[in-house]
Amino acid sequence: DKGINIKTRDEKFTSKIGGRVQADAAAYGGEPDMGDGTEIRRARLYIQGTMYHDWGYKLQYDFVDTGSAGIKDAYLSYTGFDNLELKAGNFKDPFSLQEQTSSKFISFMERGLPSAFAAGRHIGVMASTRHQHWTLAGGLFGDTVSAKGGAEDEGWGAGTRATWAPVNNQADVIHLGLGLNYRETGGTNAARFKQQAESHISGINIVDTATIAAVNDFYKVGAEIATVQGPFSAQAEYITTSVNRDSGNDLDFDGWYAQAGYFLTGESRQYKNGKFGGITPKGNVGDGGIGAWELALRYSTIDLNDAEIEGGEADSVTLGVNWYPAPTLRFSANYVDVLDVDGGTNDGDEPSVFQVRSQWAF
Amino acid sequence: DKGINIKTRDEKFTSKIGGRVQADAAAYGGEPDMGDGTEIRRARLYIQGTMYHDWGYKLQYDFVDTGSAGIKDAYLSYTGFDNLELKAGNFKDPFSLQEQTSSKFISFMERGLPSAFAAGRHIGVMASTRHQHWTLAGGLFGDTVSAKGGAEDEGWGAGTRATWAPVNNQADVIHLGLGLNYRETGGTNAARFKQQAESHISGINIVDTATIAAVNDFYKVGAEIATVQGPFSAQAEYITTSVNRDSGNDLDFDGWYAQAGYFLTGESRQYKNGKFGGITPKGNVGDGGIGAWELALRYSTIDLNDAEIEGGEADSVTLGVNWYPAPTLRFSANYVDVLDVDGGTNDGDEPSVFQVRSQWAF
Amino acid sequence: DKGINIKTRDEKFTSKIGGRVQADAAAYGGEPDMGDGTEIRRARLYIQGTMYHDWGYKLQYDFVDTGSAGIKDAYLSYTGFDNLELKAGNFKDPFSLQEQTSSKFISFMERGLPSAFAAGRHIGVMASTRHQHWTLAGGLFGDTVSAKGGAEDEGWGAGTRATWAPVNNQADVIHLGLGLNYRETGGTNAARFKQQAESHISGINIVDTATIAAVNDFYKVGAEIATVQGPFSAQAEYITTSVNRDSGNDLDFDGWYAQAGYFLTGESRQYKNGKFGGITPKGNVGDGGIGAWELALRYSTIDLNDAEIEGGEADSVTLGVNWYPAPTLRFSANYVDVLDVDGGTNDGDEPSVFQVRSQWAF
Repeated sequence: DKGINIKTRDEKFTSKIGGRVQADAAAYGGEPDMGDGTEIRRARLYIQGTMYHDWGYKLQYDFVDTGSAGIKDAYLSYTGFDNLELKAGNFKDPFSLQEQTSSKFISFMERGLPSAFAAGRHIGVMASTRHQHWTLAGGLFGDTVSAKGGAEDEGWGAGTRATWAPVNNQADVIHLGLGLNYRETGGTNAARFKQQAESHISGINIVDTATIAAVNDFYKVGAEIATVQGPFSAQAEYITTSVNRDSGNDLDFDGWYAQAGYFLTGESRQYKNGKFGGITPKGNVGDGGIGAWELALRYSTIDLNDAEIEGGEADSVTLGVNWYPAPTLRFSANYVDVLDVDGGTNDGDEPSVFQVRSQWAF
Repeated sequence: DKGINIKTRDEKFTSKIGGRVQADAAAYGGEPDMGDGTEIRRARLYIQGTMYHDWGYKLQYDFVDTGSAGIKDAYLSYTGFDNLELKAGNFKDPFSLQEQTSSKFISFMERGLPSAFAAGRHIGVMASTRHQHWTLAGGLFGDTVSAKGGAEDEGWGAGTRATWAPVNNQADVIHLGLGLNYRETGGTNAARFKQQAESHISGINIVDTATIAAVNDFYKVGAEIATVQGPFSAQAEYITTSVNRDSGNDLDFDGWYAQAGYFLTGESRQYKNGKFGGITPKGNVGDGGIGAWELALRYSTIDLNDAEIEGGEADSVTLGVNWYPAPTLRFSANYVDVLDVDGGTNDGDEPSVFQVRSQWAF
Repeated sequence: DKGINIKTRDEKFTSKIGGRVQADAAAYGGEPDMGDGTEIRRARLYIQGTMYHDWGYKLQYDFVDTGSAGIKDAYLSYTGFDNLELKAGNFKDPFSLQEQTSSKFISFMERGLPSAFAAGRHIGVMASTRHQHWTLAGGLFGDTVSAKGGAEDEGWGAGTRATWAPVNNQADVIHLGLGLNYRETGGTNAARFKQQAESHISGINIVDTATIAAVNDFYKVGAEIATVQGPFSAQAEYITTSVNRDSGNDLDFDGWYAQAGYFLTGESRQYKNGKFGGITPKGNVGDGGIGAWELALRYSTIDLNDAEIEGGEADSVTLGVNWYPAPTLRFSANYVDVLDVDGGTNDGDEPSVFQVRSQWAF
């Protein structure tokens, strides 16, 4: 019903066109210096649909990026087997609840600090199965769209994620998840982990390992728990990353977050297929309602110090207010208080951020 | 009726997809050296529509630009108040008649020389009201989409524009306008004004202040007058820019243009909401007509010399022919004669340009 | 019937939106070193249609490219004369059968080695006429979309292509073609010809003249022959390029390929307007069929050695399997065996490639 939807009379071909614009502004306090400013955080357009009953396709581009880096979902899928989807192309590795949840639907403007360990999108193939009470996905991946190997091999990886929802009714959900993600670095033979202060505009990292050389591969393990209880929701994740080096010590980095949200107007977070979806207000603005209002609080922490690598350790508290005037609209205000950075370039710093966003997405 | 238009049965959601391609060729004479050539001047795609009666959205991208610089209109709007539109996102500052008028609809292939003082698009918020006889808009803006602040604050600005049309009937219009635009330079602490010979292909500037350092802020004032009298139309603008420097003299630059057009085939320029719109030929080519034929003449001048800054002063005369075979089509030929460049790198030069364009847009 | 198709009630306006995603993976053997990896080879979106009966428009962008380089077809056309199409904008020069045939429909994942002499797309004007048994096209062109002349003139060119199909029935085709293409180099005054091992992922050229200086202009002649006989098809082309230099010897480079394909499932290659089109399987997967299966074999060779320029000579054999589960879908596997590189940087090398592709396109 939203966006441009077309189907042929015999339903052999369906198409949908949609997009997303997030316009942000941020003001920063404390150290390190971060420049106040504005940003179009995402400006996406996509075309998606089905062909000949059993085939799906999608191409999505984010105009805030340059060249092939802006290619997000770009895949072909086959759904002709019962409860099984096969995908080939560019899409997200199956890893981490907050990463699987679309940026349209996460509770805050940015994901929590452990998103430094996000697996991201790669070109590959994946099989997945989705049921009311569990999902399982596993894939084999090459490198990112923008990686150009030249004379050297590109990196490759493999990943799997399982979710279990022993309770999954509308407005009553318990979710558990486990993700494993392996990546060989290929010809770059290097890795880097870094994170901003849960704010994207200034582009300043508060923790950063810088490029770690002689990295053969690394693997990540992520554990997830989440719940929806009427207007209340909560989720938490722990992610650890183990880096194997050709020389020098192996490295272990990790991080976790826990967050809770509450809809003052009584709505519930939607849960489906092992991740969170959008909000449908009880009354839309423009139809006599006031939309949906949500308060959210998060604590998150990340540790990028190990052996001689001093990337820094940080923890932060974020308070957010979301207003959804209608299902396709969202306004958010976030206050991020970085409690402490310990080690690294920004040792001892305690920056804070106030940021706002307007969003349309469908 | 043009482009891809979709609405849901309850009209809660409408979508329109459209685009624009301008293909140009130019040949240059005189000094400075400017290379003859061709160009896709604009290649735009957009999606635009309304949601839940009171909300509007738009995302427009120009593929001739690279990365986020190509993001043009990208906003969310609210029209639920009487005669008032609120906008958030990326869009044009309210300033200058020739800038407010879409590049699809300006009388020549390029805007007049004072377009060096265009305010352009920024990320911000704006309120505007539109009536048959007047419009008023005011906004608060951050920086451009492609500005990345890093550790320094981005620039910000504010602007307002008022228009008055004591006469506004079809084919009988008198328009007066006044615009004010302020901009703080942020961390760059610099400004630059430059202009090409009303031709974009070679990319050579005939006047150019180069980067002016130690600029804290600048403000612009623009006065507009225009009329439509049947097939005849005319418009003129004067813009002055005052640059405040932390050290050294403050600077004043200015420019103006006056132009007139006449439709041999009897059409009138469309005027609405304080700016000009498109042309509807009396008879379309393909439907037995010959389209609309317009002759246009413009004089424009700009002065970028002040204090020790010698950017150059230039004035030019442009003669144009436009053929609109149908409302979505346009072919243009322009001859630009730069009468003189006085001061700056190109002192004494008198280049000329012959350029043609084919355009489709809807 | 495929993609998003809209027409107004009076059919004065039609629009179609479509796209294409090709996701590739490749593994390389032998010398020179070429990195195994993955790639989104093409990720295109387009809007195309007709306006007021006699006018056509198209804008197509490939997101794997950066900035204006990604602009593919971007033109306006007029079809109001009988059997004659006039075009203005950016589109392919009329040259070479394998280049005129869309990348969606070529028999292998990459075109044969002589594609080093492809004329590519330029901004220009073209007239063409198409009949069942012959086509003729001629155009005048400026430079590529991404060429920015600055103070120097951009390059320009002219081209023509004639095709004759003495037999042109469904599944029974004989095609002959001749193309001429001239190009002046403009301010760059240089030319370069290079080619990869019929594989795009690693980006390594096996033959490469490097930049040849003092090149005033060059012209290409291409001869084409092709046939369709039921499930069998074959095509061959010879292209020669003559480079005129301001100083030093003039240069001659050339190449040719011959290929054959056979549909195990009985389909025929579609031929229309002097080029090949897509495949319609006898039975679609998802509708009870197994799609169309095709085997294809190609020999191709290129010689970039002449006078003191030692770009290398290469020849290769490619074996391909294509599976079209439905008209909009394709999976391909190619094995490329470069028999020999003779001269140039990679003298004596004999690399091989195994590569696969998944594709949706409509």
